[in-house]
Amino acid sequence: MTENPLEDYLLSCRTLVADEIRRVIPRDGRHTGGLYSLMLDYPLRHGKALRPALCIAVCRALGGSETAVLPTAAVLELYHNAFLIHDDVEDDSSMRRHEATLNAKHGVPSAVNVGDGMLALAIEPLLDNMAVVGVGRALRILRLVARMARETAEGQMIELDWIRSGTVPGNLREYYRLVHKKTSWYSFIAPTVAGAIIAGAGEETITRIARLAIPLGIAFQIQDDVLNLMALPGDYGKDPLADLWEGKRTLILLHAMGAASAQDRRAAVHVLAKKQPRAAGVAAHHDERSAGEIEFLRSLIERHGSLDFARRSAYRFARRFQEGLSRIAEAWPTSKHKEFLFELAEYTVQRAV
Amino acid sequence: MTENPLEDYLLSCRTLVADEIRRVIPRDGRHTGGLYSLMLDYPLRHGKALRPALCIAVCRALGGSETAVLPTAAVLELYHNAFLIHDDVEDDSSMRRHEATLNAKHGVPSAVNVGDGMLALAIEPLLDNMAVVGVGRALRILRLVARMARETAEGQMIELDWIRSGTVPGNLREYYRLVHKKTSWYSFIAPTVAGAIIAGAGEETITRIARLAIPLGIAFQIQDDVLNLMALPGDYGKDPLADLWEGKRTLILLHAMGAASAQDRRAAVHVLAKKQPRAAGVAAHHDERSAGEIEFLRSLIERHGSLDFARRSAYRFARRFQEGLSRIAEAWPTSKHKEFLFELAEYTVQRAV
Repeated sequence: MTENPLEDYLLSCRTLVADEIRRVIPRDGRHTGGLYSLMLDYPLRHGKALRPALCIAVCRALGGSETAVLPTAAVLELYHNAFLIHDDVEDDSSMRRHEATLNAKHGVPSAVNVGDGMLALAIEPLLDNMAVVGVGRALRILRLVARMARETAEGQMIELDWIRSGTVPGNLREYYRLVHKKTSWYSFIAPTVAGAIIAGAGEETITRIARLAIPLGIAFQIQDDVLNLMALPGDYGKDPLADLWEGKRTLILLHAMGAASAQDRRAAVHVLAKKQPRAAGVAAHHDERSAGEIEFLRSLIERHGSLDFARRSAYRFARRFQEGLSRIAEAWPTSKHKEFLFELAEYTVQRAV
Repeated sequence: MTENPLEDYLLSCRTLVADEIRRVIPRDGRHTGGLYSLMLDYPLRHGKALRPALCIAVCRALGGSETAVLPTAAVLELYHNAFLIHDDVEDDSSMRRHEATLNAKHGVPSAVNVGDGMLALAIEPLLDNMAVVGVGRALRILRLVARMARETAEGQMIELDWIRSGTVPGNLREYYRLVHKKTSWYSFIAPTVAGAIIAGAGEETITRIARLAIPLGIAFQIQDDVLNLMALPGDYGKDPLADLWEGKRTLILLHAMGAASAQDRRAAVHVLAKKQPRAAGVAAHHDERSAGEIEFLRSLIERHGSLDFARRSAYRFARRFQEGLSRIAEAWPTSKHKEFLFELAEYTVQRAV
């Protein structure tokens, strides 16, 4: 127990879900090549278990049971971890949650395959769900999860496309749309909607919850980008300044470029049209970003107060979530689950990891 | 029309399935990053459409309808193509079906993500299937497909594990078990069993068909390995001698090593413990395979008649399939679908691509 009820809630969900994941992932046999122990690697590192906690909290705040929601919550965490594994391959990342990434430890082929195995395994509890929540709700969740995975792939593709083509989105609306697909869908929309479906919520509640999850996702992503930029080596469990090296079009960077002089803006666009160096931190070709260029981007961000702008934006979106939740949840009975949801907005923009 | 009824059958299935895939994959919108046109790339290259043809043939030979089986057949082809995309990333391949691989054309990040998007998209027609084949059969197929994807990941993992750890399996039984998981499951067991489920076959028929698909898969994989080894550049749509460079433990190589002198065997184990060179065909480190070492493996194979051994083995497994099919299909009415299944054994071991 900590002194923070939100941390306690996350921790208790984390424990429940870790047990469920251990139950769902079989032990390696003589003829599985070690697939399942690699599947367990990321889920058992110290993550926040935010997605399953959200799913459990919405379900229970609406009167659903822990038994009914747990398999779905665990599946969402499995998907999250499968996405992380493939993300780390796509970004060529070396650190995840203070340890070497799966691709760094075991190579790209194993990492790609373990992610694929997890995506396959995750379908099975959603089928077993029929016996837990009934055929109708189980099918609805299957459809939700399939859509979630596809929206996430669309979001990833948009971002990869921007980076590969050297595109810098001209307005923030395009950035928010990216985050809606890349982050909100799988981290916020799917968990909350699944929780509501399992609790047997009415259509109107489900629609309102889905809409509400969007600004929470945006707040979360902006804070993620802020943390990435402020991180010192060892601080954060990921590579420091990784987003700038990767050329990610974050709200912070877009703000800095919008506020910069025409000349600085052109220079930044030029840097963003280059590639991430293959050897981390060392530009080997003139078309790869150099440490000096990364420093230039960072100085732009500092000069134009873009971190502050991003923090204020994150607060604004978190507040929008909180206000919407107040309206929806007015009639819900008081519970620690409802409490958790209200505290989540605060946490999203104040968390340090 | 060709003069070969089997080719005609494959071609007509290919056309049906390509249309279905075009229907299932949405068009790219302004906010999809080009995901869907990349998804269409591999399926529209000239593949054999063997898996959907198998599924359609079994279903129709058992009295099922084309309308009922087509969505499932298309999903199996989608899975196959998603696996190919990720395989090409894992093997760092540059050629597929006579064109550059997706990773070579668009980079590893896009290729990983397009594969993930396809795996997500493929779930949706299996849910829509409820309206086509009924809830019970649709659910059974969902479960079959989830298991298929997991067995495939296990098979891949075993192979990656052998390659990474420098293991050479001590007996052919281990090789056959690998092929059962890596190839038979998704290319033969799932298509035939799905076809039988959709046709409403009884449990005994389904079990017998599943068992029968295993030797057909082994015959197919052995022939694949034979073709890879005999291919000249440009011949085959893949990189020539790719299997030797990758260090794949094929039946051919295992036979050659079993027949070789103790000294040659030790030398071969030494080569297999090395890595595939990062720059294709050029060993940059002493722990990477060199062209001379690949030539040594090839000479071992030649000296011990291992290609012939493999061909004979493939025939033996194909015959086992044919004999089993004769027993099961005795009572089935004559049809071009049944005919196709019988011809398939021959085709599997005689095909040139």
